[in-house]
Amino acid sequence: MVSKNQIKLIKSLSQKKQRRAHSLFVAEGKKTILELLNSSLELNMLYSEDAIFEVSPDKFLKLEKGELKKISFLKTPQSALALFRIPELPIPNYNGVVLVLDGVRDPGNLGTIIRLCDWFGIAQLVCSEDTVDCYNPKVVQATMGSIARIKISYVDLNEYLSARPQDLPVFGTFMNGKNIYANPLPQRAILIMGNEANGISPEVENLVTKRLGIPQFGKDASTESLNVATATAICLSEFKRTVFTEK
Amino acid sequence: MVSKNQIKLIKSLSQKKQRRAHSLFVAEGKKTILELLNSSLELNMLYSEDAIFEVSPDKFLKLEKGELKKISFLKTPQSALALFRIPELPIPNYNGVVLVLDGVRDPGNLGTIIRLCDWFGIAQLVCSEDTVDCYNPKVVQATMGSIARIKISYVDLNEYLSARPQDLPVFGTFMNGKNIYANPLPQRAILIMGNEANGISPEVENLVTKRLGIPQFGKDASTESLNVATATAICLSEFKRTVFTEK
Repeated sequence: MVSKNQIKLIKSLSQKKQRRAHSLFVAEGKKTILELLNSSLELNMLYSEDAIFEVSPDKFLKLEKGELKKISFLKTPQSALALFRIPELPIPNYNGVVLVLDGVRDPGNLGTIIRLCDWFGIAQLVCSEDTVDCYNPKVVQATMGSIARIKISYVDLNEYLSARPQDLPVFGTFMNGKNIYANPLPQRAILIMGNEANGISPEVENLVTKRLGIPQFGKDASTESLNVATATAICLSEFKRTVFTEK
Repeated sequence: MVSKNQIKLIKSLSQKKQRRAHSLFVAEGKKTILELLNSSLELNMLYSEDAIFEVSPDKFLKLEKGELKKISFLKTPQSALALFRIPELPIPNYNGVVLVLDGVRDPGNLGTIIRLCDWFGIAQLVCSEDTVDCYNPKVVQATMGSIARIKISYVDLNEYLSARPQDLPVFGTFMNGKNIYANPLPQRAILIMGNEANGISPEVENLVTKRLGIPQFGKDASTESLNVATATAICLSEFKRTVFTEK
């Protein structure tokens, strides 16, 4: 049986402030919870209708019928919900291809981008402070467990980019950038993707050393840009395909 | 003032059966409506709080405050809603790169894929009969107006694929397919993307002549596949980049 205090705690974790105060975040669904249990993340408490997970008894609370509804953030609750401890945010370095997000606001987009980092072996995701919090329940859900495998940090982008090694190129994506398909891309680089509506902010744009764009192939010049998650998919694919095509 | 009958009609268009019976679909939001008004689609009726669109008076109904809420399918209604006539579904041919969807069920995914077709100049999208209807309000919303520019048909994939020119390759995407980056891709081809959970169906798989896969770069072998919309972004980018890199 879930206590009123537990319900209150879990519900409060929809807010970033409360997540930081308690150092806890919510994960839902068997598949996601299993992936997080198999990672370095620390379980705080598991709430489930079935005892299908192998966790220590003091961290498991069996839910009665209908109780999941009271704590779930999903329209269709998925039989289990867990609280995990938020790990200490890593200090980002400049190794390999680093993906930088400048003001991405949509939780679904951030979740999809974290999943893409996992697929393409991008170890580090560096976010501006106004990017949506990666421990937002909707983001965690959309990552399908990938959140456990990617180092995600929130920093002042100006400081992070300014302190980089001098020879490290900073690629930014723009509607009018240079054709991304034209030249092979390096395996040590920073790649910046911007906000859904406004793109990369002027302050960050000043630190971009190479402007990239995905050429539009459609006949009609539509003003609409690509969604930031699909644009990220195309850019990461371009950075990583080199591994297979360059000898 | 919107009549009860109009509200009933609009609400009924959430169902595919009713959309087909009336040959009407719903579009919401200024930007999407403007794009559709500038296309070959025929407006049936525009409901708006402001008279900002240039349409004939008999096709415009000014909404009073609070009325939009009664007819909108959105959580946050966007000041205008329009009904457009569903065009006659085109009979698909085999020109250029044709994208085929086999059982894509999520409206957001289909919407994003239609937007990608628009970007990459894919003129034809051919869907299996169990793919989500492209005139579903959520799909229309997610296309951001691109739905007006892509020919979308729903057919028996077995028949469509079997009747193709003998020399036309049929690419299918699979978890264990051949590295998509390894060889340049042709500009006349069929590309099949499968269902979110189950991929391409066995019946359609039998008609695939070339199996493609996007290699996974992450260190940990995660079982999770890419989302179908991001996988489509990567595949279409690979088919179209050839235009810029092959001389």
